[in-house]
Amino acid sequence: MDDLLAQLRSSLPADALITDPDVMASYAHDMASFCAAGTPAVVVLPRTVEQVQHVMRTATALRVPVVPQGARTGLSGAANATDGCIVLSLTKMDRILEIGQVDRIAVVEPGVVNATLSRAVAEVGLYYPPDPSSWETCTIGGNIGTASGGLCCVKYGVTAEYVLGLEVVLADGRLLTTGRRTAKGVAGYDLTRLFVGSEGSLGIVVKAVLALRPLPPRQLVLAAEFPSAAAACDAVCRIMERGHTPSLLELMDGTTVRAVNAMTRMGLPESTEALLLAGFDTPDPAADLAAVGELCVAAGATEVVPAADAAESELLLQARRQSLIALEKVKSATMIDDVCVPRSRLGDMLDGTAAIARKHDLTIGVCAHAGDGNTHPVVCFDQADPDESRRARASFDEIMALGLELGGTITGEHGVGVLKKEWLSRELGPVGLELQRGIKQTFDPLGLLNPGKLF
Amino acid sequence: MDDLLAQLRSSLPADALITDPDVMASYAHDMASFCAAGTPAVVVLPRTVEQVQHVMRTATALRVPVVPQGARTGLSGAANATDGCIVLSLTKMDRILEIGQVDRIAVVEPGVVNATLSRAVAEVGLYYPPDPSSWETCTIGGNIGTASGGLCCVKYGVTAEYVLGLEVVLADGRLLTTGRRTAKGVAGYDLTRLFVGSEGSLGIVVKAVLALRPLPPRQLVLAAEFPSAAAACDAVCRIMERGHTPSLLELMDGTTVRAVNAMTRMGLPESTEALLLAGFDTPDPAADLAAVGELCVAAGATEVVPAADAAESELLLQARRQSLIALEKVKSATMIDDVCVPRSRLGDMLDGTAAIARKHDLTIGVCAHAGDGNTHPVVCFDQADPDESRRARASFDEIMALGLELGGTITGEHGVGVLKKEWLSRELGPVGLELQRGIKQTFDPLGLLNPGKLF
Repeated sequence: MDDLLAQLRSSLPADALITDPDVMASYAHDMASFCAAGTPAVVVLPRTVEQVQHVMRTATALRVPVVPQGARTGLSGAANATDGCIVLSLTKMDRILEIGQVDRIAVVEPGVVNATLSRAVAEVGLYYPPDPSSWETCTIGGNIGTASGGLCCVKYGVTAEYVLGLEVVLADGRLLTTGRRTAKGVAGYDLTRLFVGSEGSLGIVVKAVLALRPLPPRQLVLAAEFPSAAAACDAVCRIMERGHTPSLLELMDGTTVRAVNAMTRMGLPESTEALLLAGFDTPDPAADLAAVGELCVAAGATEVVPAADAAESELLLQARRQSLIALEKVKSATMIDDVCVPRSRLGDMLDGTAAIARKHDLTIGVCAHAGDGNTHPVVCFDQADPDESRRARASFDEIMALGLELGGTITGEHGVGVLKKEWLSRELGPVGLELQRGIKQTFDPLGLLNPGKLF
Repeated sequence: MDDLLAQLRSSLPADALITDPDVMASYAHDMASFCAAGTPAVVVLPRTVEQVQHVMRTATALRVPVVPQGARTGLSGAANATDGCIVLSLTKMDRILEIGQVDRIAVVEPGVVNATLSRAVAEVGLYYPPDPSSWETCTIGGNIGTASGGLCCVKYGVTAEYVLGLEVVLADGRLLTTGRRTAKGVAGYDLTRLFVGSEGSLGIVVKAVLALRPLPPRQLVLAAEFPSAAAACDAVCRIMERGHTPSLLELMDGTTVRAVNAMTRMGLPESTEALLLAGFDTPDPAADLAAVGELCVAAGATEVVPAADAAESELLLQARRQSLIALEKVKSATMIDDVCVPRSRLGDMLDGTAAIARKHDLTIGVCAHAGDGNTHPVVCFDQADPDESRRARASFDEIMALGLELGGTITGEHGVGVLKKEWLSRELGPVGLELQRGIKQTFDPLGLLNPGKLF
């Protein structure tokens, strides 16, 4: 331990190390509930690639595990410390190194905050789409590690789609460059994509080349009320079947709507069983909203309210953005699931989730990136009640089982971390798991990088 | 050898095996020039996953190398036979298993021809964008193996962007399922993407889940003549900098234009030094073409001709599609390069290529997916002239060196195969190469899958 600190200090400035137990405690875990976290030996905040290399060389020499971290806004415990580990926080490596308008790329350090990048590129007419709900605080490095999604995915895809190339410090401290700055390239296996979503288990991302798009027109949003979740899901299917390309297509079930109302006094329709929000950032969004509004009515919508302008649209989105926080206030605790199914099965997923809630006599509010088939069922329970807690855990698992049964995945965008470790093998199967472990072994033969996560 | 055939025959129908030397010879190589090809022991054309598993189990038991093949339209020798190998042609596994309109996916066997799939999905209002120039004959399996590009990449990306999930027979015959049918998912490392572009070296793709898009409006194309390649590249930069999203943005240099004229009598402008084709499949393509036309004039275009309709647009594209064939007629032989640079460096790439042609006293015609920065310099030479052949090879290499120097890649979309093996290590560097080999070792410990390709 003294050896570890001494070796780290030999090539790091004093202010790059934190050993105060109270401060270290704040670095012990991300925002996932009910995920075990250990006590780090030290928290290191490097500012340069060389410093990261020094940390990894030291870790390898002394066989100390390393847990890389961004802003710790993750929801699966992937950034949780393990006992005696080095917490490697990349938040101080926060420079935007380059924004190229012709090439439509940005080159950034991992600690750049998503919103900071989004605003910087918008100033020159460009757009970095990935927008996880933590976008005001989460970092690009964390987004890459967890392959974050967001509201825009239905049109613009997830973080993975925007990572062209990486610089990565390997477990032994060597520097690897992957990918490219070009629009395309096929030289060898796609190592870049392997790192996206790897939850820090293969290497430490110290630089990223990101693809950008032209800034689209501001989106206009429509809200539609439905008498049932099934009717709203039917509308989603009709919208996609007709070839529309909404820039967002979000669903809040009745429980979520009422929870948001209770918290915000927003005056959302209390009696609705599902609120669908559809957005378009096309040249003529009003026309698209009109067409989609008709499809909603055909699917049974009782009310369709198109926003008059961007400001009104933003207000509608606020309701959606408050969903998770509002549901957290329903009971003393929540477990947030993240099951993604083929969108044609979204209705089955919502009906099945409601059945699980009834069976276990629990409140489960669902908000969903409906256009992606990605649901976030939020299981609300009283932590002081052991039986209710047990039922909550059981329903959380049953929701994942249902997702797999419907041809979906246990995690659309939140990742595996420690929360869904046991479920990963179920989704991947033994052959897939063996190969995943083989890849881990190739990149990190000593198993020092974020041990105990994923599998 | 007898043992091999006997074991293969034990679980394969007679018509799935070819041993006639003349017929086998036609399976020995793809469309790359000057790439060594060996003599296969047998060509196998399986029709089921189980048959592929039988082939791989046999190959593993007897330690026989396997070279997987699609339509052999590749341009880097990745599908070339090695001596004594099993050529595994997937062309008979050619069923479209499913097209889902709501989920916007297709599930296909690897032998489905790109154009067959494109037409089938278009019938239900969907679009499978990847359109390599061999799209009328090449297979989806081959497209996945080589991570093919095409004309549409500038707006719609490459094959990789459309592969959601795979079923793969591993070297030892086990079946692996990767990825998903859902719009997104982050359960474990992205093995799907690892297979895309792996040139059959990690496993045999036997089924693919592909993402589709809504069918866009038919595109309208504009042709612009420039007095120099540099001016055309300047126009490309202006178009992208202004935030336009063309559905194609192609460049033919003067040499290419004249070669196409010589072959087709199309009447293209003989005196032009660069012809730029820009297409839009937006709701109002004429407006977009007008804006882009102005940018072309500002960059020095001497003539701008927008097509009046889709038919006229198609005619303009014919010229581009004939480019490679026309350049092949300039001399007895050609070497086709595939260097992709950041599009801001496209002008430097074209000027540098012209300088290499002058230095070696060679004709090098360039056509380019200009919007991607992806150039195809075609080195034309007389194969009977040893000195000219030597200079051709030297210039081919110098073009790749130039691409790397400009921050690009040795291959934008044609792949490594045997043609660019020596160059792959140069692009990846020793650390990258070591990890790539580690991955190969994880998937194919005996080294039986397409040996001698990539690295």
